[in-house]
Amino acid sequence: MDINTDKYKNITRNLEREMINLNPIQRGGIIPTEAKKIIYEYWDGYSVCDYCSGRLDQIETPPINEFLEDMSKFLGMDITRPTHGARESKYAVMNSICKEGDYVVLDGNAHYTSYVALERAKLNYEKTEIEEYPTFRVIPESYAEKIDLLEDSKKNIGLILLTHVDGNYGNVADVEKVGKIAKSKGYPFLLNCAYSAGRMPIDGKKLNVDFIAASGHKSMAASGPCGLLSINKKYEDEVLETSKVNVVKELQMLGCTSRGIPILSLMASFEHLIERVKKWDLEVEKTRKVVNELEPLGFNQIGEKPRNHDIIRFETPILDKIAEKDKRRGFFFYEELKKRGIGGIRRGVTKEFKMSVYGLTNVQVDYVINSMKSIINELR
Amino acid sequence: MDINTDKYKNITRNLEREMINLNPIQRGGIIPTEAKKIIYEYWDGYSVCDYCSGRLDQIETPPINEFLEDMSKFLGMDITRPTHGARESKYAVMNSICKEGDYVVLDGNAHYTSYVALERAKLNYEKTEIEEYPTFRVIPESYAEKIDLLEDSKKNIGLILLTHVDGNYGNVADVEKVGKIAKSKGYPFLLNCAYSAGRMPIDGKKLNVDFIAASGHKSMAASGPCGLLSINKKYEDEVLETSKVNVVKELQMLGCTSRGIPILSLMASFEHLIERVKKWDLEVEKTRKVVNELEPLGFNQIGEKPRNHDIIRFETPILDKIAEKDKRRGFFFYEELKKRGIGGIRRGVTKEFKMSVYGLTNVQVDYVINSMKSIINELR
Repeated sequence: MDINTDKYKNITRNLEREMINLNPIQRGGIIPTEAKKIIYEYWDGYSVCDYCSGRLDQIETPPINEFLEDMSKFLGMDITRPTHGARESKYAVMNSICKEGDYVVLDGNAHYTSYVALERAKLNYEKTEIEEYPTFRVIPESYAEKIDLLEDSKKNIGLILLTHVDGNYGNVADVEKVGKIAKSKGYPFLLNCAYSAGRMPIDGKKLNVDFIAASGHKSMAASGPCGLLSINKKYEDEVLETSKVNVVKELQMLGCTSRGIPILSLMASFEHLIERVKKWDLEVEKTRKVVNELEPLGFNQIGEKPRNHDIIRFETPILDKIAEKDKRRGFFFYEELKKRGIGGIRRGVTKEFKMSVYGLTNVQVDYVINSMKSIINELR
Repeated sequence: MDINTDKYKNITRNLEREMINLNPIQRGGIIPTEAKKIIYEYWDGYSVCDYCSGRLDQIETPPINEFLEDMSKFLGMDITRPTHGARESKYAVMNSICKEGDYVVLDGNAHYTSYVALERAKLNYEKTEIEEYPTFRVIPESYAEKIDLLEDSKKNIGLILLTHVDGNYGNVADVEKVGKIAKSKGYPFLLNCAYSAGRMPIDGKKLNVDFIAASGHKSMAASGPCGLLSINKKYEDEVLETSKVNVVKELQMLGCTSRGIPILSLMASFEHLIERVKKWDLEVEKTRKVVNELEPLGFNQIGEKPRNHDIIRFETPILDKIAEKDKRRGFFFYEELKKRGIGGIRRGVTKEFKMSVYGLTNVQVDYVINSMKSIINELR
């Protein structure tokens, strides 16, 4: 057996330590000091299970059971379980409440994981219409149309799925409208909150939501992989069905899910989450400032305007133009940002890029704005 | 919203820091210093994905792709994917290669997660016979009988599953014999290596194994939750089928699985694993010493003899007898061990308990033996 393990030694990651990271999938998952401290305590394999009597979600030491109850309050739902992430939460719902071949009606901005989850559960889908360029907003009324269409052709609808905030444009969907449609038609309604729960306030009950899929690593300041599934108690029996062979174990959870430090980091970050969600308006304000300051450079923000979420997608014809004459080609932007201690923008992109300043200080936000301004002004 | 987050602050875990932990589900998951160092670098949410171009298992920085290839060599298999744990690996196989209603033929010592996985995948099962008390060994020939029985009654067999080392008795099953039966009958063969891969040497090819389910947190010195699925390339197309909507994403992985520090800790521990597996004989020796020294106290080791694995299950009539007169009742043993800095034995057990000295130094092993001796001799 010829294995050279040298390459697994001393692996370092300087992006987060030394740079400002603008990657939207990363900003909501940066963990606070409290979470770092708890990781020291629980980094060994099955450490979470020291005092387990059979079920992860019922462990009292550390207080996972109380945490999940508090999380239900935080999300305005009845019952919460840890999962490995939002995709695993969605799959658990689909695999338990839908029958093979059922249709999932989902928004035109749905994340790829909604598709892999439904394909894995052997389901079909019907995609709703979204607005055209440049807003790409979800059209709630399209849900009613697609549902009618499926019903008319005798297709069985198993689930209505809406992406609360999509990862492409950062549009915030009108949950209440879609929730009303789902409810009036009598279908279960799942909200993918991977980019919302933990960033912005959510009240599932108020929104007529039956299931919330949340992501610890994307928006809840937790170490990956980690997520939550919050459910309306109406669906408890179906989604949380237990094994016939081992009657305490829940099938969709395969017994236990997040059996390690990710769930502990999420618990330790909970207070930080509660506080930061209260300041969501300030985050949106920072984001709008970035858009307002950078558009005059030749950037063009697509998606809804003004911004209601921290994800920003810019079309950047100006970068394309500079790349034509710069000897570094499309890589100049990445390189120039790197020089200035800014990372997280894809290498080589010139047509468009995504960014987020979520959680950065005002000084950092200004630094990012000014850095981009100086790069463009120097090279244009 | 009335949430008191005080209880999530300063959660500590002194079991591992201050005690010798004898819990068999914990001993194989204690991480070495190299893994602790890498956790500092990657503890933020999606940190693993800094340089991802669409697939976790193909990430080059950090070298996840090379690691998985090396893991295939280490396990004697063709292709390896990260998963969230052995149960998730088993489910991925069942959900991809079996059809609803198929039978899984599995050993009488199978872990509960084998059942929840097959129930979640809507499969049936047939359990093979095991030897009677006190050995409880898997009887390989029973596989042939059960397969014939199912074939005679026209049942469709989807998978043969064997628990390499069971968690109840720590018996090491005769993989070669079961593998030969599976092969001669033409059925795919999954080996649950949750308690073996990472502790003892395994060569999947030599054993006629088609799938290996491994556990990072149980036996591979990794932070939980983390695991591996290693497969024979013959099953690549079925198990690693990709999405029709997003063609790079694998359905059974829901796109990406262990997207966080668990997989990094497993990578950092790899050299440690390679080295410790070479010393498996010494571990077995330590285990046999514990049995030989403690049986004269009135403990009775059940499961195969002599031990071929570090899990030890003792029947303990002597503890039962002491509990009758000790004012702490069944809790005396736990309390007395705790006084001596030893943990991981279930509180209140007197009839029997499980333990492991895997990875402890010889001095620690002697300390554990002498502590138990002194407790019994003082109180009997």
